[in-house]
Amino acid sequence: MRDRLKELIASRRWEMTIVGVIVLNAVTLGLETSPAVMGRIGGLLTTLDTLILAVFVVELTLRIFAFRFAFFRDPWSLFDFTIVAIALLPASGPFAVLRALRILRVLRLISVVPSLRRVIGGLIAALPGLGSIIVLMALVFYVFAVMATKLYGETFPDWFGDLGRSTYTLFQVMTLESWSMGIVRPVMEVHPYAWLFFVPFILCTAFTVLNLFIGIIVSAMQEEHEHIAEADRQAIHDETGIILEEVRALRREVEALRRSQA
Amino acid sequence: MRDRLKELIASRRWEMTIVGVIVLNAVTLGLETSPAVMGRIGGLLTTLDTLILAVFVVELTLRIFAFRFAFFRDPWSLFDFTIVAIALLPASGPFAVLRALRILRVLRLISVVPSLRRVIGGLIAALPGLGSIIVLMALVFYVFAVMATKLYGETFPDWFGDLGRSTYTLFQVMTLESWSMGIVRPVMEVHPYAWLFFVPFILCTAFTVLNLFIGIIVSAMQEEHEHIAEADRQAIHDETGIILEEVRALRREVEALRRSQA
Amino acid sequence: MRDRLKELIASRRWEMTIVGVIVLNAVTLGLETSPAVMGRIGGLLTTLDTLILAVFVVELTLRIFAFRFAFFRDPWSLFDFTIVAIALLPASGPFAVLRALRILRVLRLISVVPSLRRVIGGLIAALPGLGSIIVLMALVFYVFAVMATKLYGETFPDWFGDLGRSTYTLFQVMTLESWSMGIVRPVMEVHPYAWLFFVPFILCTAFTVLNLFIGIIVSAMQEEHEHIAEADRQAIHDETGIILEEVRALRREVEALRRSQA
Amino acid sequence: MRDRLKELIASRRWEMTIVGVIVLNAVTLGLETSPAVMGRIGGLLTTLDTLILAVFVVELTLRIFAFRFAFFRDPWSLFDFTIVAIALLPASGPFAVLRALRILRVLRLISVVPSLRRVIGGLIAALPGLGSIIVLMALVFYVFAVMATKLYGETFPDWFGDLGRSTYTLFQVMTLESWSMGIVRPVMEVHPYAWLFFVPFILCTAFTVLNLFIGIIVSAMQEEHEHIAEADRQAIHDETGIILEEVRALRREVEALRRSQA
Repeated sequence: MRDRLKELIASRRWEMTIVGVIVLNAVTLGLETSPAVMGRIGGLLTTLDTLILAVFVVELTLRIFAFRFAFFRDPWSLFDFTIVAIALLPASGPFAVLRALRILRVLRLISVVPSLRRVIGGLIAALPGLGSIIVLMALVFYVFAVMATKLYGETFPDWFGDLGRSTYTLFQVMTLESWSMGIVRPVMEVHPYAWLFFVPFILCTAFTVLNLFIGIIVSAMQEEHEHIAEADRQAIHDETGIILEEVRALRREVEALRRSQA
Repeated sequence: MRDRLKELIASRRWEMTIVGVIVLNAVTLGLETSPAVMGRIGGLLTTLDTLILAVFVVELTLRIFAFRFAFFRDPWSLFDFTIVAIALLPASGPFAVLRALRILRVLRLISVVPSLRRVIGGLIAALPGLGSIIVLMALVFYVFAVMATKLYGETFPDWFGDLGRSTYTLFQVMTLESWSMGIVRPVMEVHPYAWLFFVPFILCTAFTVLNLFIGIIVSAMQEEHEHIAEADRQAIHDETGIILEEVRALRREVEALRRSQA
Repeated sequence: MRDRLKELIASRRWEMTIVGVIVLNAVTLGLETSPAVMGRIGGLLTTLDTLILAVFVVELTLRIFAFRFAFFRDPWSLFDFTIVAIALLPASGPFAVLRALRILRVLRLISVVPSLRRVIGGLIAALPGLGSIIVLMALVFYVFAVMATKLYGETFPDWFGDLGRSTYTLFQVMTLESWSMGIVRPVMEVHPYAWLFFVPFILCTAFTVLNLFIGIIVSAMQEEHEHIAEADRQAIHDETGIILEEVRALRREVEALRRSQA
Repeated sequence: MRDRLKELIASRRWEMTIVGVIVLNAVTLGLETSPAVMGRIGGLLTTLDTLILAVFVVELTLRIFAFRFAFFRDPWSLFDFTIVAIALLPASGPFAVLRALRILRVLRLISVVPSLRRVIGGLIAALPGLGSIIVLMALVFYVFAVMATKLYGETFPDWFGDLGRSTYTLFQVMTLESWSMGIVRPVMEVHPYAWLFFVPFILCTAFTVLNLFIGIIVSAMQEEHEHIAEADRQAIHDETGIILEEVRALRREVEALRRSQA
């Protein structure tokens, strides 16, 4: 029976059904943001939402039953599990914010549709090669955040009051949003040499981001490249194979000639 | 007669004439934006505009007559048809905005000039390969827009009051325009953990845009690459072909030798 | 005598002297921006500046004498000529702004130093291939500028009052500077559907810029690529050449064998 | 004894210890930014910091002892030396800012961890090839800064009062931060043709940055490329080697045949 269940879950029909349920849920959760719509058909939407959640719970239960421990070793299954689990948590009192996270269920579309899964998979596959650059970026941020807090924390507590605020402000500066008119020019009115801190920071992060970027491009190209090089080598192998065949036939011919003379 | 018409339409002279008419129309429509010019030669410009529109209508009619149904199967012809049709709609009352769309006629330059058509064609040809990433982007936007509306809709109705406003504000945040000083810092004064929403959003969209970008670059390179690889394989084929020729001649020689001895 | 002059001008010593004079001029023109320095050694700087200009005039005269008409056919020579000519124009009254253009003389460094000339040459060489995309960009700008002037010219004359202002504002929007908080949100308060104009504009220009960018990258790579492919083909040619040699030697051998038997 | 010291310093255990000390120091220096934490365990943190500094001094002394002059020829060793030296300078009075630089010690992680060192090494290795573009960028900045100071220095002293301010403002304009709403629109109210200065500046710097960028990408790809081309040529060499072997064997055969007939 578990095998038939596995077959069912892997079938295209099942996949389409789940995609349909997710899209329906996306629509109901979208409509729930409108007070006007909620006033008119709020009850229906809430009921639908509960029903869809039930469908998801049943689907996950079936998959856990079908795959047992293998379920928990597949990252996409864990992704689905976490997203559905969030919806089952009580969303009252201090956890009211969890209600807003219910829309994350729509992200299940990624784990269900293979082409989306491949895109995300590709991104994640590129990460390990970028590990060093990410560590470097974290290091740059940490060093500059500590320095900013020490240098400007007292005079500009809103922006550099503690490590968290400094990191946030530096992230803003890295994205170049209002870095000069909004942040550095006001800071320079108190600390005239602040540009010696911020301009190098911008150059450092721009260079690191550039490297992250190039790392991703080069790794994407490389794969492409290898395929073509492989095809090239195959073509060479085929061409020379034909010659080799001829040469060997010729050799047999000569050997036969020699034997006939001996 | 239809064949002679087709010939005429495909001729370089006809193309040049249409380009000339379009450029003239671009100039008249540009001059119409100046009240001073309109005050002096407004009547002339309006007359010219009507004449040019007549030329376009005649040209389209001829093409429809020449190509019949094939006309409506060519996307560029439909593009021309739509643009001219807009100009023929009554542009009064609530549709006064359509008057401003008349300048779209200048875009016919794209469908007439082959090199421009190729650029646009290239862009559109790249789209299907990017389908997954565009769906992913739409998904990210939808999920974050619903969450933003639920989380900040009440406190910041101008920015996140409904799904439409949230989507627009998130698009602004994605382009990094005033995202921090203009949007997130004010939001953080009410919801101190808002950065947990916006910083991941920025990172998600930056990563998705990066992928879109890399997808386009890699596909552009790949084509280039294939051409060179093709030329390489041809070169190998030619080189080995010469050897093969020699070896086969040699074999015939040996065979002749053997036969002469038998 | 003209030949010796040509030799002198092409010599490394002459080049170094001119580079030295240009750098000195860069320093004097930089110092002239400081009122304090001008107060103390202003006379010296002005004298030096006149002297250096004289050196440039003499150098150009020598080059014109040496190369005659060929001088005016070399774009870099024309570049030098224009820059020096600007400095000789009377810079008084309404032309006082020309005084500020004297610093352009420092750009002669580009025409003198070969590696800088190559960089600029590379950029200019890439332009023809990008012609279509630049025309497309101009078209997009023109169409949107006319529309913006018609739609928002009356309500926002400072931003969209005429074609020039609209083009400038659209350029600002293209660079994403304050596009939303500064321009589109205020416009949307009067014209609620303005986002239907600006968001497509941003997407259009972003896509066109992206294509410009990819065009440049691909053409830079392609050159690189061709070099490697060329080397590859050479390697194949060499390898197969050795085999061909062997096979031909073998054939001569067999022919000799056959003749000896005949 | 120096050899045993060298061995110790190169050992993985030593490396791990130093990494551990650096990370610990990163944590203590981070905690020092919080007044609350300093109030409670400030003494402990200061003591730890002094201890760690002592460890670094001892480590550097050992390395200098072990490698003698070679130490000062290795750029990474000089990097470590400078960073530790900063921490030993008296940080009082006008040098209080040096206290904030102590966090730079955390950057020693880069010199200790090989993968981080490689990333930075890669960046620095790419610089010489980009020399011309960097010089070009500096030239563009200098020329435009001098012009801006002359043209707008009097009317906007805060932004263009001297060469330094102009350079900073132009850097801001280059990053596109508030370039129009913040800088150029106000300037245009006094100098209506200021866009003729700033728009070309933006285009120039954008193009130069683009070239810098492409230079880095192409050089990164090229390396990749060469590896694959090398493998290709090896494959060709191997394939043709087999044929050559066969042909030579055949030739020996024919020679033997001929000799046996002679």
